[in-house]
Amino acid sequence: MQRRTVRNRLALIATAVLMSACATANAPLTIQEQGSFAVGGTVVTTPGTFDPIKQGAYNPTPDPTGQTLHGDHAYVFYQVPVDARRLPLVFWHGHGQSGKTWETTPDGREGFQTIFLRRRFPVYVIDQPRRGRASRSTQPVTIAANPDEQMWFGVFRLGVWPNLYPNVAFSPDPAALDQFFRQSVPNAGPYDVEVNTNAVSALFNRIGPGILVTHSQSGTLGWRTAIKNRNIRAIVSYEPGGDFIFPEGEAPALPFGERTFTAHHPAVGLHAAHESPDRHLLRRQHPGAAEHESGTGAVACVSRGGEALAGRCERARRRRHARGAPLDRYPRQHAFSDVRPQ
Amino acid sequence: MQRRTVRNRLALIATAVLMSACATANAPLTIQEQGSFAVGGTVVTTPGTFDPIKQGAYNPTPDPTGQTLHGDHAYVFYQVPVDARRLPLVFWHGHGQSGKTWETTPDGREGFQTIFLRRRFPVYVIDQPRRGRASRSTQPVTIAANPDEQMWFGVFRLGVWPNLYPNVAFSPDPAALDQFFRQSVPNAGPYDVEVNTNAVSALFNRIGPGILVTHSQSGTLGWRTAIKNRNIRAIVSYEPGGDFIFPEGEAPALPFGERTFTAHHPAVGLHAAHESPDRHLLRRQHPGAAEHESGTGAVACVSRGGEALAGRCERARRRRHARGAPLDRYPRQHAFSDVRPQ
Repeated sequence: MQRRTVRNRLALIATAVLMSACATANAPLTIQEQGSFAVGGTVVTTPGTFDPIKQGAYNPTPDPTGQTLHGDHAYVFYQVPVDARRLPLVFWHGHGQSGKTWETTPDGREGFQTIFLRRRFPVYVIDQPRRGRASRSTQPVTIAANPDEQMWFGVFRLGVWPNLYPNVAFSPDPAALDQFFRQSVPNAGPYDVEVNTNAVSALFNRIGPGILVTHSQSGTLGWRTAIKNRNIRAIVSYEPGGDFIFPEGEAPALPFGERTFTAHHPAVGLHAAHESPDRHLLRRQHPGAAEHESGTGAVACVSRGGEALAGRCERARRRRHARGAPLDRYPRQHAFSDVRPQ
Repeated sequence: MQRRTVRNRLALIATAVLMSACATANAPLTIQEQGSFAVGGTVVTTPGTFDPIKQGAYNPTPDPTGQTLHGDHAYVFYQVPVDARRLPLVFWHGHGQSGKTWETTPDGREGFQTIFLRRRFPVYVIDQPRRGRASRSTQPVTIAANPDEQMWFGVFRLGVWPNLYPNVAFSPDPAALDQFFRQSVPNAGPYDVEVNTNAVSALFNRIGPGILVTHSQSGTLGWRTAIKNRNIRAIVSYEPGGDFIFPEGEAPALPFGERTFTAHHPAVGLHAAHESPDRHLLRRQHPGAAEHESGTGAVACVSRGGEALAGRCERARRRRHARGAPLDRYPRQHAFSDVRPQ
C-alpha cells in the first residue's frame, strides 16, 4: 500500500512537472553550468610491462603489452539552468541513436534538452556505452555499413515506405528525413544490457536523485537500472522497447494487439543481489526491432518458466500479416510510467 | 603584398580576439539559441526495390535491396550567445577524439566551448565524419578494442609512462587521466581526408564566414578545408598534425628538430579545381602518430617530386633514439596560423 502510494505520487510529480508550460520559447536560456564527462565503465589491462621507447610515441605499434583500455562508460553532456529545480532529467536515447535524439528535432525545432532547460530542469543527455561519444568498447566489433534505412523508417513507425502515415507528427520536408537518417549511429561494440545499466547506474551515483527519461531500446534498460539504483525517483518512458518489469502480482494482464502472452519470470540479466527480495514480471511490449538486437539475449520474449518465446512472437507476427493486417495499424506506444520498486 | 597583408590582419584578429579576457568565469551563460544538426555526407543506395512487408518493420532483415544509407556527414552542436560576435568559432578535434575535446577538460574545468561562449563567440563543435555522433559511415570497419593507452599517453605528450613530464599542464589527479582515456573514440569507418574536408566545407557553406580552430589531426584537414571554402576566414591550430600547406614560395625553410627536409609538392589529395591556380608546399611537422594514420595516404611525408619520405622519417626517428635522445625533449608544438589563400 505504502509502496503503491509512493509510486503514484512520483508518477504524478513526473507527469505534472513535464507538462507544465511555464517557459517561453525563443527567450534566452540562462545556464549556470554546463559540461561533459564520462561515467562508469571498466578497464582492461594486457599483462606485461609497457616499454615507452619500444611501444611509445616514437614507435607507435599495436603491441598491447602492459597497456590499458578504458571502455564501456557512458558519455554525458549536462546543463544546469539558473534557479534550477531539485530533480534533474536524465535523457537516454533508443536503438541506433545517441544523445542527439534529445537535441534539435529532425525538422529543426528545439528538442527536449532545451525545452526542459527552459522549464528549469537540470538536463543530462547520455550517449550509452558503445554508442556515439562513448564508443570506446572493451569488446571488438565489425560495423557492416549496410543500407537499412527504409526498414528503420517502418520500425520507428514513420510510415510505410515511401509514405508517411496520415497525420503522423513527423515533418514531410525531405530535409527532415535526411537529418533523421543522419542522426543514426551504429553500435561500436556488442549491445550489452549489463554494461548499459551499470554505466547509467554509475551516473545516478554521481549526480544523486533524478528522473530518468527513456526511449525505445532504453525502456527496458531504464527499468533495470532503476532496480539497481534508488536515486532513480521516476521514469518517463517513450515507446518503451524490450520487456516491461513489474513487481510480482502487479503486472496488468492486458492484451497487446493480438498478443495476449503474459510472461511471468524473474527479471533476466539482473544481478541476484539487486533482484532479491523482489521478483519481477516481464511483459513483452515492443514488437519491432528490439527482439532482433544483438547482445546478451536478456531482452527477449520469455514465458512462465523461462523458455524463449521468440518462436511464438515470430509466428504471431506472421499470422497477423498473413491476414492482411495493414501496417498503418502498427501500434503507436507511449507510456508514462513510474516503476521504482520501494 | 596585398595577400600577405590580409593574412596578417586576419591572424591578428584571430589571436587578439582569442586572447581577450572580457568575460567572468562562473557567471551564468546567456544563450540565444542552441541545437545540433548533421551536415555534408553522402547517400549510398542499393539497387532494387524495397518491400516494406518483406523487409520492413514486421520482418526486419539485413537485406539491403532498395535501401539507403546516409553517412559520412559531420555532427555539429552549436550555441549562440546573446549579443554574439560576428564570426563564430568552429572547433575541430584531433585523432581518436570527438567534440568532447572542447567541452569540459579531463580535470573538470570549463573547456573552450564554454570559455568562448562567455566571450560572446557563437561556437560550433564538430564530430568529424565516422567519429562519435557522426559514426554512420558508408564504408565498413572492424574496431579491434586494442589496449593502447600508454602509447597515446606518449603521443599526446603527457609524459613518459607512467610519469607526466615536469611542469606539464595536465593534472596529476588520476581521475583526470581516467577521464582523458575515456574521451577517446575509435574511427567508425576508414579515415579519409576528402570525406572529412568535404563535410566541414559543407558546414561553412551552411553557417557562412567563421574561424576554424583545429587540433592535431585536424591541423592538416583544416588547411585543406580552407582551400576548398573561402568562408574560413582564419585558422587557429593547436599542435597541428599532418602536413602544413603554404602558397608556393612562402614555406619557411626552418629546421624542425633534426629534420630539415623541406617538401615542395602540389598539395596532395585536393581537387584540382580547388587547388588551381595556386600550388602549395607541404611541410612535414607532426612526428608523432599522424604518419601512422590509416586512410588515403594523403597525410604523409612528401618530397620535391612527390616520392614518399616515410622511410626517411622512420630512419631519422630511429637515429634520434639510437643516440639516446630523451623522450622529454619530444617537441611541444603550438601554432597560431592563418593560411587562407586569398
